[in-house]
Amino acid sequence: MHQVKALVFDVFGTLVDWRTSIARESKAVLAPFGISIDWFEFADAWRNLYQPAMNEIRSGRIAFSKLDRLHRRNLDAILSEYRMDHVDEASRCLLNLAWHRLDAWPDVGPGLNALRTRYLLAPCSNGNISLMVDLARRNGFTWDAILGAELARNYKPDPAVYLSAADAFDLQPAQTMMVAAHSSDLSAAAAAGLQTAFVARPDEFGRGKGEAAPTVAVDISVSSIVDLAGVLARSAGT
Amino acid sequence: MHQVKALVFDVFGTLVDWRTSIARESKAVLAPFGISIDWFEFADAWRNLYQPAMNEIRSGRIAFSKLDRLHRRNLDAILSEYRMDHVDEASRCLLNLAWHRLDAWPDVGPGLNALRTRYLLAPCSNGNISLMVDLARRNGFTWDAILGAELARNYKPDPAVYLSAADAFDLQPAQTMMVAAHSSDLSAAAAAGLQTAFVARPDEFGRGKGEAAPTVAVDISVSSIVDLAGVLARSAGT
Repeated sequence: MHQVKALVFDVFGTLVDWRTSIARESKAVLAPFGISIDWFEFADAWRNLYQPAMNEIRSGRIAFSKLDRLHRRNLDAILSEYRMDHVDEASRCLLNLAWHRLDAWPDVGPGLNALRTRYLLAPCSNGNISLMVDLARRNGFTWDAILGAELARNYKPDPAVYLSAADAFDLQPAQTMMVAAHSSDLSAAAAAGLQTAFVARPDEFGRGKGEAAPTVAVDISVSSIVDLAGVLARSAGT
Repeated sequence: MHQVKALVFDVFGTLVDWRTSIARESKAVLAPFGISIDWFEFADAWRNLYQPAMNEIRSGRIAFSKLDRLHRRNLDAILSEYRMDHVDEASRCLLNLAWHRLDAWPDVGPGLNALRTRYLLAPCSNGNISLMVDLARRNGFTWDAILGAELARNYKPDPAVYLSAADAFDLQPAQTMMVAAHSSDLSAAAAAGLQTAFVARPDEFGRGKGEAAPTVAVDISVSSIVDLAGVLARSAGT
């Protein structure tokens, strides 16, 4: 662990509470159309199309496109499923950018600030660069670079995404630690040679419906980003 | 100019005084080998191989590789030309990373901080991501993202580099302003549709040997990054 020089982070679920934010934003944009539904269920339905959309690109069936565009295609599908075809184009654009307006879990800001004194930090997310930039401005994250899917032009868990993040920092995979709240992400990062830290976000998908503990072997398992900073500082002997 | 949402910056010469820094670092690494030369001339000789090396990639003759690698190839050539073949591998590696240890012109830090309140900011340099990250840490630059050659996988003045920077921010080229101390860079950016700001660095290549004024049409011409922040604030009516 002493050789770790950079930490790269999953973002949706790990750093930001996408579900609460998307439910709030969906209500704000759609309630004026006279729509009244379970907004968390709507957020879940939209998010459920996330992995299948990326599979089209991972498999090589379609060319890489930014997550914003995949989110928009999925939004149109969900609005149709919910019989909300009367929602106009401007409102769809506004709602699609809800993913740029997600709020961080409260430990993230202080945790990243503590980690920044010792490590290079970057998101390694499937979100596009502009989405990461907007989340950073909104939540006060200070990144060294925006790495991830748009740089690699492929989506996690493709190994190219993890490897491109380490390479951008001129580091070996083993000098780079992937931080995520999802065992599947960490499993793929470890297979690519990165070190791994699991952060528990047990309420990501609703109370008690997130991962409380990793289901794969990881190098570190913590309850928050602040906790991660503390564990790494202790392991470095300071 | 009111539509500008992001500023993207040339770095070598525009934000950092590469010549003074490379002369200093070259002396620090090479003087212990008993070498005593004009260190500014050495810096110039190394830098003179910069454009030819990138031409190999722009022309498609060789695949994209990071500027660090091109710098290293050029360093080996210059050391050979200077009959310094006895400089060992570790010293060459250390000296090559001198490009990660360049100091900013004094106006840059305060200027970027002022601009950051109003615009998205990123380097759009031919330097690789890790080089930009190290310069940012050293000089206290806070970027929204690291854009430029490594993202575009080509070198300026290829239009793909300018266009990829605007696209990463989800902006039209005309919503993006390229800031540089070199008319050739701004000419290419303008041809790609970006707005342009010239910053005078008359001493970049030695006293009075830099560009004191642009030789092409630009949208703004200023004497420093602080000056740029002032001009843009006044044009926005604040």
